[in-house]
Amino acid sequence: MAAARATLPLPRVPAPSPRPQLRPFPSLPARRGAVACGAGSAAAGVAASLRLGDVIEAQQFDRDALTEIFEVAREMEALERGSSSRGAGRSRVLEGYLMATLFYEPSTRTRLSFEAAMRRLGGEVLTTENAREFSSAAKGETLEDTIRTVEGYSDIIVLRHFESGAARRAAATADIPVINAGDGPGQHPTQALLDVYSIEREIGTLDGIKLGLVGDLANGRTVRSLAYLIAKYQNIKIYFVSPDVVKMKDDIKEYLTSQGVEWEESSDLLEVASKCDVIYQTRIQKERFGERIDLYEAARGKYIVDKKVLDVLPKHAVIMHPLPRLDEITIDVDSDPRAAYFRQAKNGLYIRMALLKLLLVGR
Amino acid sequence: MAAARATLPLPRVPAPSPRPQLRPFPSLPARRGAVACGAGSAAAGVAASLRLGDVIEAQQFDRDALTEIFEVAREMEALERGSSSRGAGRSRVLEGYLMATLFYEPSTRTRLSFEAAMRRLGGEVLTTENAREFSSAAKGETLEDTIRTVEGYSDIIVLRHFESGAARRAAATADIPVINAGDGPGQHPTQALLDVYSIEREIGTLDGIKLGLVGDLANGRTVRSLAYLIAKYQNIKIYFVSPDVVKMKDDIKEYLTSQGVEWEESSDLLEVASKCDVIYQTRIQKERFGERIDLYEAARGKYIVDKKVLDVLPKHAVIMHPLPRLDEITIDVDSDPRAAYFRQAKNGLYIRMALLKLLLVGR
Amino acid sequence: MAAARATLPLPRVPAPSPRPQLRPFPSLPARRGAVACGAGSAAAGVAASLRLGDVIEAQQFDRDALTEIFEVAREMEALERGSSSRGAGRSRVLEGYLMATLFYEPSTRTRLSFEAAMRRLGGEVLTTENAREFSSAAKGETLEDTIRTVEGYSDIIVLRHFESGAARRAAATADIPVINAGDGPGQHPTQALLDVYSIEREIGTLDGIKLGLVGDLANGRTVRSLAYLIAKYQNIKIYFVSPDVVKMKDDIKEYLTSQGVEWEESSDLLEVASKCDVIYQTRIQKERFGERIDLYEAARGKYIVDKKVLDVLPKHAVIMHPLPRLDEITIDVDSDPRAAYFRQAKNGLYIRMALLKLLLVGR
Repeated sequence: MAAARATLPLPRVPAPSPRPQLRPFPSLPARRGAVACGAGSAAAGVAASLRLGDVIEAQQFDRDALTEIFEVAREMEALERGSSSRGAGRSRVLEGYLMATLFYEPSTRTRLSFEAAMRRLGGEVLTTENAREFSSAAKGETLEDTIRTVEGYSDIIVLRHFESGAARRAAATADIPVINAGDGPGQHPTQALLDVYSIEREIGTLDGIKLGLVGDLANGRTVRSLAYLIAKYQNIKIYFVSPDVVKMKDDIKEYLTSQGVEWEESSDLLEVASKCDVIYQTRIQKERFGERIDLYEAARGKYIVDKKVLDVLPKHAVIMHPLPRLDEITIDVDSDPRAAYFRQAKNGLYIRMALLKLLLVGR
Repeated sequence: MAAARATLPLPRVPAPSPRPQLRPFPSLPARRGAVACGAGSAAAGVAASLRLGDVIEAQQFDRDALTEIFEVAREMEALERGSSSRGAGRSRVLEGYLMATLFYEPSTRTRLSFEAAMRRLGGEVLTTENAREFSSAAKGETLEDTIRTVEGYSDIIVLRHFESGAARRAAATADIPVINAGDGPGQHPTQALLDVYSIEREIGTLDGIKLGLVGDLANGRTVRSLAYLIAKYQNIKIYFVSPDVVKMKDDIKEYLTSQGVEWEESSDLLEVASKCDVIYQTRIQKERFGERIDLYEAARGKYIVDKKVLDVLPKHAVIMHPLPRLDEITIDVDSDPRAAYFRQAKNGLYIRMALLKLLLVGR
Repeated sequence: MAAARATLPLPRVPAPSPRPQLRPFPSLPARRGAVACGAGSAAAGVAASLRLGDVIEAQQFDRDALTEIFEVAREMEALERGSSSRGAGRSRVLEGYLMATLFYEPSTRTRLSFEAAMRRLGGEVLTTENAREFSSAAKGETLEDTIRTVEGYSDIIVLRHFESGAARRAAATADIPVINAGDGPGQHPTQALLDVYSIEREIGTLDGIKLGLVGDLANGRTVRSLAYLIAKYQNIKIYFVSPDVVKMKDDIKEYLTSQGVEWEESSDLLEVASKCDVIYQTRIQKERFGERIDLYEAARGKYIVDKKVLDVLPKHAVIMHPLPRLDEITIDVDSDPRAAYFRQAKNGLYIRMALLKLLLVGR
């Protein structure tokens, strides 16, 4: 969303002292004379809490913004758990708001998570599951024109697209908030937020975390976004454990070094597991290997999280995974209390509830 | 809807004097002993406001019906704008009503517009985006059987179909209201209504309008339906500007002449633009040209709305387009205040809100 | 649902004397230390009304359970009819509850029926129409992993799957209720429930019914499930009328014999029709014949319900069909009051409303 923040309601209770500001998303041109949101309200001297404009990429959040989003997510969790067996306890804070899930490629998990989040807060949903094939896009309409139409029908757009940068283009066009639900090989910021939130929920802290990133580190936007976000915290140590063909790329390594994050590569999963707070396993993506099925098969079997990993993993540590998993975590790991991946998926609901609330009505 | 109007609630406040009646859709046979709606209430001596039964084709509306629909659309616009940034202000007038969007071919724009309209009034939605491929239709079920099932689950059916006449068949079968959201090469009456409503909103009047219809006039059901509707008004002048291969067909020309509407064909877009209140541009539909890509390319580039058109267009005039557009309106036109096509798309929301309200609870 | 019944609200008014118990679904292993639902509450001495855990297969219901479900369905029918033309009269008993329709193969009729049922009770819906192709399943995720994710987003899962046994696996995994909306060649229990309910509604009784099952008896899971359920009643007589290639299989015949149900095969539809209370016609499924189109065509034309059947059918009897139909019931039968198949489809709404209410909030 590039404009018209003036129409948003003010925070209900202005905080008496300055609150953390979202670093306004830097490269979006302001449209139609609007001020950038965070900066604008600060400049006006209003002591506002976090004012999100759009959610486009993991890097847009500073540590204070993360802290506030996580606080709201905790409130959402309390709300949802408190009413989990009774409809009557549900929040209606987003009643009358309409979210459009505009998905140019299908992603059922992400879509259902956003739609559940909206509905758990009393809001309504317009769904397009396969906009690429079904919509005017097939006739050649630009994303910008589609956005201009859809923003007339809804209060917030959740966009999934196959092209990197699509979310940024949508946000530059729309006068209502846009959330990036994954744009091709680009970003998937709400996944990164739920990952970091899950680490804090599971381990109790983020500073000082030792994190093992395992699997396909070259193609997984999940681990890339996570690396960007976790670098905001102190005394982080990251271990990269991956087959040679899908090693973490240099840009992330250089970024981590520039941020003072220690990292090293290892080929010994058991040794890494014995030292880590979090083992973050990922799926080797077959679709990235094209014809080279042999390379895929070799990469896929190399680092499996199984009972042997659990045997060396510290008692307080956890196994995470963005899902879906194939066999890179064996089924017998599921019953271990340190298997956190389904709790992690559930945290996606709380993070998305928090973002929808912050974007639509503020804190 | 062919029957059972007796079960509809009476209008809340009967008007003291006769109100305009919808001309009852003429060729639908009454089913199960029902009376035709408009005529029925008139015969009973009830001074009712507009009572819509079904929305099947542009020709079914007389001028008084249009006036009343547009009045309600204005109320919807005021309602929606008044609450645009706050959920709490939303209307709940259709709370508890359930609309089935039964789409045999995808049309994301139209579907989202109807679903947003229903939700903005507090109603609920059942969605089928691709009924042709996914539903029992693929097993050979007739449209009539599908309608008989779906009417058991919902209060109103919005039908998009690939066959001309499908909406009429559905309405003859169903005991609940049916809205035609486009049936093949046939009709798309809600598009025609929003077009005429947009002209009135933009120009301030309909009588005396000079209208330039540009582009594919042979295949576009949009311009055909619009010609039918605008002919209800006084002193209309229409210019047809199109490549020879997609000229307006004789049936429409004859209809206009019979209604006393002046029209002429022109090959000079700039000259026409200099004289018009509305330039209604349309997309040349590639899919109509089959193998003759050469003819398509020639037709497509012939009449483009660009800065040169804006230069000669009167200050008070507007550019309209049913969307999606490709390059028949250049992007640099968008920022001109006379570019009305995204406002026009938004008007589709108000028109559909108005129709849903009129069909389900009356005025 | 295999666990955590303790979190369900107690029935509002505990009955003073023991009420019929659902036979707990026998072969599901209890997960995470939960007690089996029906048995658990009985063991605790709580005089509870029917407590459904999951709806997996027709055989799980005993006669008392059926009676109670049908009572609630009648209440739903009264509720829905009482408010059929006014939104305001709708029930909100499931307000705040969220149902996920997780469909691995499309079935628009069944899906819309469940979604309408949920919405008629004030609940909300998350929809996946084509999970097989669109979701993580395409990447190789197990059904169990998908269920663990989706149960985090919703309060109840309605599962349609292409594999027999899928619903049982889902129920063994989920901590929330699961309803089987058809699992491949396996079961479709809500169809069987609505069929039996329809017989009772149309004929007034179930004991003593004479039932003609016609058409594809080999492949139709509908008639198989119906045979299982109707066998719970007294003095039932079943006639099987089908082309030789799709005769009823021995397992069902043996089951009926073991339950004391009389049955016989006949090749004379008119003679059977003259003796029956219910003629249950089914579609010959072309997709089961593969290349043998000749066999399909021969089977398809053999037993048609037409005016000649109506001529011999008793006045009080009815024609039923699970829909969709092709030409196995001729169109001219539709207007006969004994044509019950569209009323039967509507009963699916009431049965599903009843099940959702019973599973989510109890009676």
